[in-house]
Amino acid sequence: MAGNSFGEAFRFTTWGESHGPAIGCVIDGCPPGIPLDAAVDLQPYLDKRRPGTSRFVTQRREPDEAKILSGVFEGRTTGTPIAVIIENTDQRSRDYSEISRQYRPGHADFAYDAKYGVGVRDYRGGGRSSARETAMRVAAGAVARKVLNSILGPTFSVRGSVVQIGKDQIDRANWDWNEVEQNPFFCPDREAARRWETLVDSARKDGSSLGAILEVVAEGIPAGLGEPIYGKLDSDVAAALMSINAVKGVEIGDGFASASKRGEDAHDAMRPSNSGGVAFDTNYAGGVLGGISTGQPLVARFAVKPTSSILIPRPSVDADGKAIEVRTKGRHDPCVGIRAAPIGEAMLAVVLLDHLIRQRGLRGSEWPSLDQSRG
Amino acid sequence: MAGNSFGEAFRFTTWGESHGPAIGCVIDGCPPGIPLDAAVDLQPYLDKRRPGTSRFVTQRREPDEAKILSGVFEGRTTGTPIAVIIENTDQRSRDYSEISRQYRPGHADFAYDAKYGVGVRDYRGGGRSSARETAMRVAAGAVARKVLNSILGPTFSVRGSVVQIGKDQIDRANWDWNEVEQNPFFCPDREAARRWETLVDSARKDGSSLGAILEVVAEGIPAGLGEPIYGKLDSDVAAALMSINAVKGVEIGDGFASASKRGEDAHDAMRPSNSGGVAFDTNYAGGVLGGISTGQPLVARFAVKPTSSILIPRPSVDADGKAIEVRTKGRHDPCVGIRAAPIGEAMLAVVLLDHLIRQRGLRGSEWPSLDQSRG
Amino acid sequence: MAGNSFGEAFRFTTWGESHGPAIGCVIDGCPPGIPLDAAVDLQPYLDKRRPGTSRFVTQRREPDEAKILSGVFEGRTTGTPIAVIIENTDQRSRDYSEISRQYRPGHADFAYDAKYGVGVRDYRGGGRSSARETAMRVAAGAVARKVLNSILGPTFSVRGSVVQIGKDQIDRANWDWNEVEQNPFFCPDREAARRWETLVDSARKDGSSLGAILEVVAEGIPAGLGEPIYGKLDSDVAAALMSINAVKGVEIGDGFASASKRGEDAHDAMRPSNSGGVAFDTNYAGGVLGGISTGQPLVARFAVKPTSSILIPRPSVDADGKAIEVRTKGRHDPCVGIRAAPIGEAMLAVVLLDHLIRQRGLRGSEWPSLDQSRG
Amino acid sequence: MAGNSFGEAFRFTTWGESHGPAIGCVIDGCPPGIPLDAAVDLQPYLDKRRPGTSRFVTQRREPDEAKILSGVFEGRTTGTPIAVIIENTDQRSRDYSEISRQYRPGHADFAYDAKYGVGVRDYRGGGRSSARETAMRVAAGAVARKVLNSILGPTFSVRGSVVQIGKDQIDRANWDWNEVEQNPFFCPDREAARRWETLVDSARKDGSSLGAILEVVAEGIPAGLGEPIYGKLDSDVAAALMSINAVKGVEIGDGFASASKRGEDAHDAMRPSNSGGVAFDTNYAGGVLGGISTGQPLVARFAVKPTSSILIPRPSVDADGKAIEVRTKGRHDPCVGIRAAPIGEAMLAVVLLDHLIRQRGLRGSEWPSLDQSRG
Repeated sequence: MAGNSFGEAFRFTTWGESHGPAIGCVIDGCPPGIPLDAAVDLQPYLDKRRPGTSRFVTQRREPDEAKILSGVFEGRTTGTPIAVIIENTDQRSRDYSEISRQYRPGHADFAYDAKYGVGVRDYRGGGRSSARETAMRVAAGAVARKVLNSILGPTFSVRGSVVQIGKDQIDRANWDWNEVEQNPFFCPDREAARRWETLVDSARKDGSSLGAILEVVAEGIPAGLGEPIYGKLDSDVAAALMSINAVKGVEIGDGFASASKRGEDAHDAMRPSNSGGVAFDTNYAGGVLGGISTGQPLVARFAVKPTSSILIPRPSVDADGKAIEVRTKGRHDPCVGIRAAPIGEAMLAVVLLDHLIRQRGLRGSEWPSLDQSRG
Repeated sequence: MAGNSFGEAFRFTTWGESHGPAIGCVIDGCPPGIPLDAAVDLQPYLDKRRPGTSRFVTQRREPDEAKILSGVFEGRTTGTPIAVIIENTDQRSRDYSEISRQYRPGHADFAYDAKYGVGVRDYRGGGRSSARETAMRVAAGAVARKVLNSILGPTFSVRGSVVQIGKDQIDRANWDWNEVEQNPFFCPDREAARRWETLVDSARKDGSSLGAILEVVAEGIPAGLGEPIYGKLDSDVAAALMSINAVKGVEIGDGFASASKRGEDAHDAMRPSNSGGVAFDTNYAGGVLGGISTGQPLVARFAVKPTSSILIPRPSVDADGKAIEVRTKGRHDPCVGIRAAPIGEAMLAVVLLDHLIRQRGLRGSEWPSLDQSRG
Repeated sequence: MAGNSFGEAFRFTTWGESHGPAIGCVIDGCPPGIPLDAAVDLQPYLDKRRPGTSRFVTQRREPDEAKILSGVFEGRTTGTPIAVIIENTDQRSRDYSEISRQYRPGHADFAYDAKYGVGVRDYRGGGRSSARETAMRVAAGAVARKVLNSILGPTFSVRGSVVQIGKDQIDRANWDWNEVEQNPFFCPDREAARRWETLVDSARKDGSSLGAILEVVAEGIPAGLGEPIYGKLDSDVAAALMSINAVKGVEIGDGFASASKRGEDAHDAMRPSNSGGVAFDTNYAGGVLGGISTGQPLVARFAVKPTSSILIPRPSVDADGKAIEVRTKGRHDPCVGIRAAPIGEAMLAVVLLDHLIRQRGLRGSEWPSLDQSRG
Repeated sequence: MAGNSFGEAFRFTTWGESHGPAIGCVIDGCPPGIPLDAAVDLQPYLDKRRPGTSRFVTQRREPDEAKILSGVFEGRTTGTPIAVIIENTDQRSRDYSEISRQYRPGHADFAYDAKYGVGVRDYRGGGRSSARETAMRVAAGAVARKVLNSILGPTFSVRGSVVQIGKDQIDRANWDWNEVEQNPFFCPDREAARRWETLVDSARKDGSSLGAILEVVAEGIPAGLGEPIYGKLDSDVAAALMSINAVKGVEIGDGFASASKRGEDAHDAMRPSNSGGVAFDTNYAGGVLGGISTGQPLVARFAVKPTSSILIPRPSVDADGKAIEVRTKGRHDPCVGIRAAPIGEAMLAVVLLDHLIRQRGLRGSEWPSLDQSRG
């Protein structure tokens, strides 16, 4: 019930504040015998999310070097909890007294004080509400991904991309997953990525910030994952993505656009597949029907609001109820959405592994029985 | 972990199939001493969701009369589990053998078979995946609402509305909550409601169906509800709404539109309120910052895809992998989104009560200490 | 978190008061495709627990006829929640006003009022705290047992017995499981059973009551069940048995006697088994090492205090704080421990299935790999 | 569901192996604003459990210095997760290859291999199954105790003691809580403590080991804690204590002895108290009725088997199924039960705080309404 854990059968718990000595997580329920190495399996994903990798993200420098302190022995998971820790090295000794009682617009400051009481919050760098916590989601997601690859084989993948920054969307005709690795925006459309350089630079120079829309896609997952009513796969994905800092919307498959469609255009027709199973003509459903995976790619999108920390002054209030003006100095992402791509991937991987383990429990060796499932 | 329960401190578990003898739920964690009467407190909400109330919803006739079998004594809750049951009276003895092995496009049939194995599913009327299950969400929500009103007083409300059917959106300038009760669409815009009569009639006559977008709003809630990381209030709302049948997207406050905004236009400025607390100029955040309520109205929207059961034939496959054509006969909603308004309200009420109880546990009599919180 | 559910992957939730219209439970997480029939699979176990079966148990007459309302289709489980209901038929219209505000010694009356507030408790027949609730444990256990038999085959069994009533213990040299079915005490020692007739009759005639010690044994379970630290198999068994009404102690294997042993006599030696696995010389551990099953019989004992409802008057207090004298009239068990045998069996079966499902989830088709495990 | 967390509203998760780089825990759900300092509030309890404090416990030297890495700011809890870490400093570089595939009698080795698969276990010093994990229970318990003292005031206490070693019980007439701090056995009877010196020395010299029975008592707790059916306070206490390494039995109040009593001697009579509430004549119930606290002292006992690691050789098997003889060298406790006293206290404190938070959530400011509750 306490709010710092995610998942059921595969479950991680995160801890740590932005400017405390370290952040960390405990990953519980990981199957045993999976090869796992922090440098090889975790660090590449953490490096993607890391600040300071291009001029389009915050220049805060954190090596974000993850260490595994338990649960791995002689290079393989043992089935016991995996503790991951990252020391906070860039805790600048700046003076936070100014902001300690300020409620920055768009930030969690006011809400935390309402929840926990005025005066107990660790205000340094956003404390617990800092996006720094998401490094631990990436670490847990990296473990989940390793296990999923081990169980499902090389056809499994989970990938994230940015499909819109500000008002500028990609052209889906240009979609190229390889391109995502080639530009600093996780953008699958090379032309859009070029336009975004100017767009993001411009916002940064204005002291403003931009929102974004991201898309995460998992492929090679079996049909049958998800509980039918309250642990629906899409419901858990929605919770997972909405829990990421600054996310304001989540959709699966056609999402909000499905509201504008007519029934005959909204549901994926099925046909016998060459392998004797089921093939879908389309993927309007985004890989989920009735809350359960169909074996098609699981496709989810989420919207990230513009960075709250901007140089442009905004009216606000302090903990004493006095009117103030807030202008956030320091190093900030002009578009926090960009770095959300590896975080979205990670959360999706965790949801999928959690449900895979639960489904194995329910069906045991009978499952999977339907290999019709890959469309 | 099993997937038929929702909530933590206030928790309900539903059971039952569309054409079984009954459906029901068990509501656990309800505070004691709250007056509760099935006819007065549950039935009005169930009647709103009930089929057969207008020509725009399915004509299946179910009185949907809820009985309370436990947890209430001499008219008040005792703190023990509240069991609610509705007998299924309209179980027509039609022949389901034709559809028993068919996978209807857009329905959960194929996914259930993948999950549970071919041949065990209760296919009659959709079985467990039927929208009939949502009656129990409405019952649980009605209990939550009663408790919330009892704790928070008359300023608390949770209301749902339909803001778009097909491509036709309401005009927000016309918004009138009273209007929602006056038309069969839960529409707050009288003019849109008139247009929708024609729109929905037309879809029904074509044997097609329409999607919809709904908006649910809770007012009079205290600041401080929500766990900061994985039990965020908006994350739980997203899970709650996405778990409703046919929902494909959820957004909070500005939602997807926030991606197109710039930082200075995306975050709600604060000012000292007349009462010495905090007032917000706007509500872009939809009442949640950092996953915690701000005391502003909580505003969420969700998209419902068009009804899957349509008269227009669609290509599909049966459990033997043979190509078939599916055309759903029988009584169906031309727009299932309409009846989702009371369901969305109910789920929102459950999430709020769950977090209210948890926050009381965390803070005890210290809380609420910040009545600055109502903007 | 709410307190009326038990189990994780296999989970049941009970509801209902002694004198309400019905009691029931919802069983979630049951694997699909298991043949299940209320009359064949549930009723025999309920009948064992049922009042009125001999002069040594309460004469309250409840047919306790269980109906399954969901989750079973064409004779097999579907994987969706199984709702079980028993109507309360023996709700005598006696006047409870006398006891409505009395705190009966040894009963939950005072504690319920402290928890829920004075005046909201359903005091009729003990309300929610009545042992009647345990009928639903037996129903859930019967489902668990059916699934376990289906997965583990005929070598699996779970059996309960009474090994002590008052100060009179059985002679273990006389142990005969067949005898348990032949006497009204679930006693494996025919001679002890004969003595107990006199003993229990005598207590009943005195208006007094007796305590008991029970032993439950599960055989044919695989090694490897149980989470190592907080979901230890023995920890869950302890919680399960201690949650039964009137239970005051639980032990596994040697239990409290192990405190008096020396190390060389307290730990089971192992030897290569004929089948190439591991055989244990003894079973001091009761089938659990480090919280995980060893494949040996799981042996647990629990102590049940004497029935609280006795004819002998006792000093007490009412809800107004006034001194009263309480003498419980009506039909009561002279030794509630007797009827706890089928309840203990049921709880043990639920714990085992829960962990079996979880272990399948963790290991998938790799497991069981160690069939050395049956000693 | 994963097995390394304990508690619901107040919840801790432990990680770490005996010979890994560190062990730790994450404590979630801690109320904000509580003063907390590792050296002052945690270390004294850890020092009690620490090895090497007398010749009667293992001589392994671990300073067991706990550091708090998060959740505390400017000396007070913030409501966010509290991460505690202890580095493992005494990881002797001894050669474990001999025992890496041996199944030591009484140890978890065989069961772990059955659960996780042969060859993945961290066998060094028992790995995850080492009693070293219990240091983190003590840390979590110390936090719980601090919060309980803060909420309940100085009348609250939780204390543990050893009441039997081997066959030698204390004389309850000699009970003196102050004595517990004065001898190396946590023994409340000075005379027994003297006898135990000889007893334990003798077992150590023989290369053998002894079992023990412990008693933990919490005083100053309000009536009304505990969920009535499956989250019963005594059921949770049973799970908590049974989860401690080497524990084989748990009892509350009269425990197993209650089986031998007659009804008129087994239930605590009540009388009006001087303060207008309820006073109990006795405490046979151990402070719990119907699973809910009565306000009387909560009294629980648990049995700890003799240390499994002994110098006397025992027959066993290795992972290849070959017969071996095991003789555990190294530094071991002659009676592990001794150091279980602070662990039992800690687990009891965690259970009580968890239920206190839950009860506050259920009742809010209405509670406690019954101060009749302290007998």
